[in-house]
Amino acid sequence: MALIVQKYGGTSVGTPERIRNVAGRILATQREGNSVVAVVSAMSGVTDNLIKLSRAVSEQPTDREMDVLLSTGEQTTIALTAMAINALGGRAISLTGAQAGILTDGLHTKAKIANITPRQIRKYLNDGVIVIVAGFQGQTLQGTITTLGRGGSDLTAIAIAAALKAHNCEIYTDVDGVYTCDPRIVPRARKIDVIAYDELLEMAGSGSKVMQSRSVEFAKKFNVPFEVRSSFNQNRGTIVKEENPSLEKVVVRGVSIERKQAKVTITNVPDTPGTASRIFTALADANVVIDVIVQNVSVSGATDISFTLSQDELDKLGGLLDEVVREIGAGTVAEQSGIAKLSVVGIGMRTHSGVAATLFEALGKGGINIQMISTSEIKIAVIIDEAKIAEAANLAHEAFGLAGPAAA
Amino acid sequence: MALIVQKYGGTSVGTPERIRNVAGRILATQREGNSVVAVVSAMSGVTDNLIKLSRAVSEQPTDREMDVLLSTGEQTTIALTAMAINALGGRAISLTGAQAGILTDGLHTKAKIANITPRQIRKYLNDGVIVIVAGFQGQTLQGTITTLGRGGSDLTAIAIAAALKAHNCEIYTDVDGVYTCDPRIVPRARKIDVIAYDELLEMAGSGSKVMQSRSVEFAKKFNVPFEVRSSFNQNRGTIVKEENPSLEKVVVRGVSIERKQAKVTITNVPDTPGTASRIFTALADANVVIDVIVQNVSVSGATDISFTLSQDELDKLGGLLDEVVREIGAGTVAEQSGIAKLSVVGIGMRTHSGVAATLFEALGKGGINIQMISTSEIKIAVIIDEAKIAEAANLAHEAFGLAGPAAA
Repeated sequence: MALIVQKYGGTSVGTPERIRNVAGRILATQREGNSVVAVVSAMSGVTDNLIKLSRAVSEQPTDREMDVLLSTGEQTTIALTAMAINALGGRAISLTGAQAGILTDGLHTKAKIANITPRQIRKYLNDGVIVIVAGFQGQTLQGTITTLGRGGSDLTAIAIAAALKAHNCEIYTDVDGVYTCDPRIVPRARKIDVIAYDELLEMAGSGSKVMQSRSVEFAKKFNVPFEVRSSFNQNRGTIVKEENPSLEKVVVRGVSIERKQAKVTITNVPDTPGTASRIFTALADANVVIDVIVQNVSVSGATDISFTLSQDELDKLGGLLDEVVREIGAGTVAEQSGIAKLSVVGIGMRTHSGVAATLFEALGKGGINIQMISTSEIKIAVIIDEAKIAEAANLAHEAFGLAGPAAA
Repeated sequence: MALIVQKYGGTSVGTPERIRNVAGRILATQREGNSVVAVVSAMSGVTDNLIKLSRAVSEQPTDREMDVLLSTGEQTTIALTAMAINALGGRAISLTGAQAGILTDGLHTKAKIANITPRQIRKYLNDGVIVIVAGFQGQTLQGTITTLGRGGSDLTAIAIAAALKAHNCEIYTDVDGVYTCDPRIVPRARKIDVIAYDELLEMAGSGSKVMQSRSVEFAKKFNVPFEVRSSFNQNRGTIVKEENPSLEKVVVRGVSIERKQAKVTITNVPDTPGTASRIFTALADANVVIDVIVQNVSVSGATDISFTLSQDELDKLGGLLDEVVREIGAGTVAEQSGIAKLSVVGIGMRTHSGVAATLFEALGKGGINIQMISTSEIKIAVIIDEAKIAEAANLAHEAFGLAGPAAA
């Protein structure tokens, strides 16, 4: 008998009808001869409503109380899901994060899982009962309720799969899996059957928001293979696992894009130790999240430093950099929005050369100007004009032969 | 420094604005130099919505899961209330029933409190923190969430007051306190300053639904005096406490009425042991809740038995009694709705005679026919035509001099 951990996101349990659908899927999985633990999120919209309520009583709600409040969202779903399974003739019970033995640190609203003692889960599974666990939440050693922050339910599922040594971990969402590119932009994009953790991480960090990076990192760390698939159909999804020789044969796994980026360039930065640190410490202190950083080789003791960030982050800059530039004796600060990032990702790049050349050639043929280039071991990212991003994505997708034969 | 337990009902915390109001009251109580524990209910309407959700996924939701679901209502309120207090510059933390140490039996949806270990509450109070506790809920020894059933939040407050040996227990609601009669029916009704547990119990059992009987019984058992008052003004409310000589000086404390009653009469019941039991066992087995039972002295080996019940309960009878009547060899079954019950209540009755006479005389002068009479040690109840109930209530209220001098 296999042990399967499933996770259903907010959209999958967004209405009573969808909860009944999910209940049917869970029960079917058990009736195929498996033990099942299902982790569920809050019904879509519920968390936002709770946040609105909190703002109506406090401008700056305490983090501890925010966790007590938000955790009710998942608690509602576990009860409803268990009821729905019982109504279908199954036997299910619900457990909150605390009851499921999910122990976290005390960092409210973004707690880290410290340990899982799935004693209760095991007890019910042994009795043939389906266990429905609230995602996104846990408790401290002192018994205080905590939440895990964005993507926390995925994390709960993967952590429970690791703790129980589950045979399968299935992450159900509203998309069919991970695609070679966003199908709304690249019509010939196709679903990826198998992808390595690191590839998904690079894709996730580049705008393919099928899962939060921390959940993928956690899965990688504890080597928990999982499948991303849709709760609205029976299609196979995308299996995410550790890399192996067969995965390396594919040079580029996918193309991911990120719109609404902005670029900041500081000119004439003195090429002395500590100046870059001054700039990026100032940005970090102001909680500005930056993405790509590019610094070219210094010419005559000074260099230009550029970095990209989400357009939304641009507002936080204010006059911050002007001050830093004055201090370090650099030149000017230039901001530019309306740009986008395109990344090609694949662990096969490590052993194959010429990937950058293929990408640059494809973009060049399309007359697309590359403003910045940044590479990692398994990714090449370029910054281009946002107006050209769809064209660029299609060109790159074609250049690396990612289109499926079926999708014409 | 006094320790005060307050309880705010669903209407008192029905909107974010009202929660902010309640937060202000709690904080003011602390700033007057008290330690404060506040027990809160679910925001009004929330529990009903959750019940609706449950019906949308299951025709007959499991009791265990119902408790997991419903307990989120109070959990939402504790977080919001604590946030609101913190926003006002106070220091508050929230505790679920389980965290507050409220241990119950495992009878889901109507659990009984078995024990309270208020270790966490004490710890926070010692640190000068206001503690907000979720009413209506607890957990079993195994850590399963339970709820206490109707009026459960009152019960939580009184049980915590008992466990902490609180100086005061204040039950905040949407009325000013307990009245000598319903002011909508008797305009000259006035608020009662002090009432004995037993009097409130008799009033509650007779339609004055300011509190559920079980909470009053619990308070009586553990001798916890409490005050029922409004959260919408600063008026003093009604203090409920154990009886004492000064309370006994008042013969009648109040008049309570119950509309929409029905009467069932079974004629010619053989006066042999066990026949009454046959009738009422049959009713109990069918979950019919009955109120007053009257059986007169037997004449020539047979007697008539009458009982009253809520009109809503009448439907449950069906042909049930016809069958019983046949079995025991009684006469006929007659049902009559459109009647009402009027009760006069007061512990002073025990030592004063003539109360019944005064009541009957007052009703007789008004030409109101008494259909049934039932008495307890501290209550006289009469069943009359429902159309006459307002008139009867005013007559009784006058006859016992209950009107306040101020209310003209």
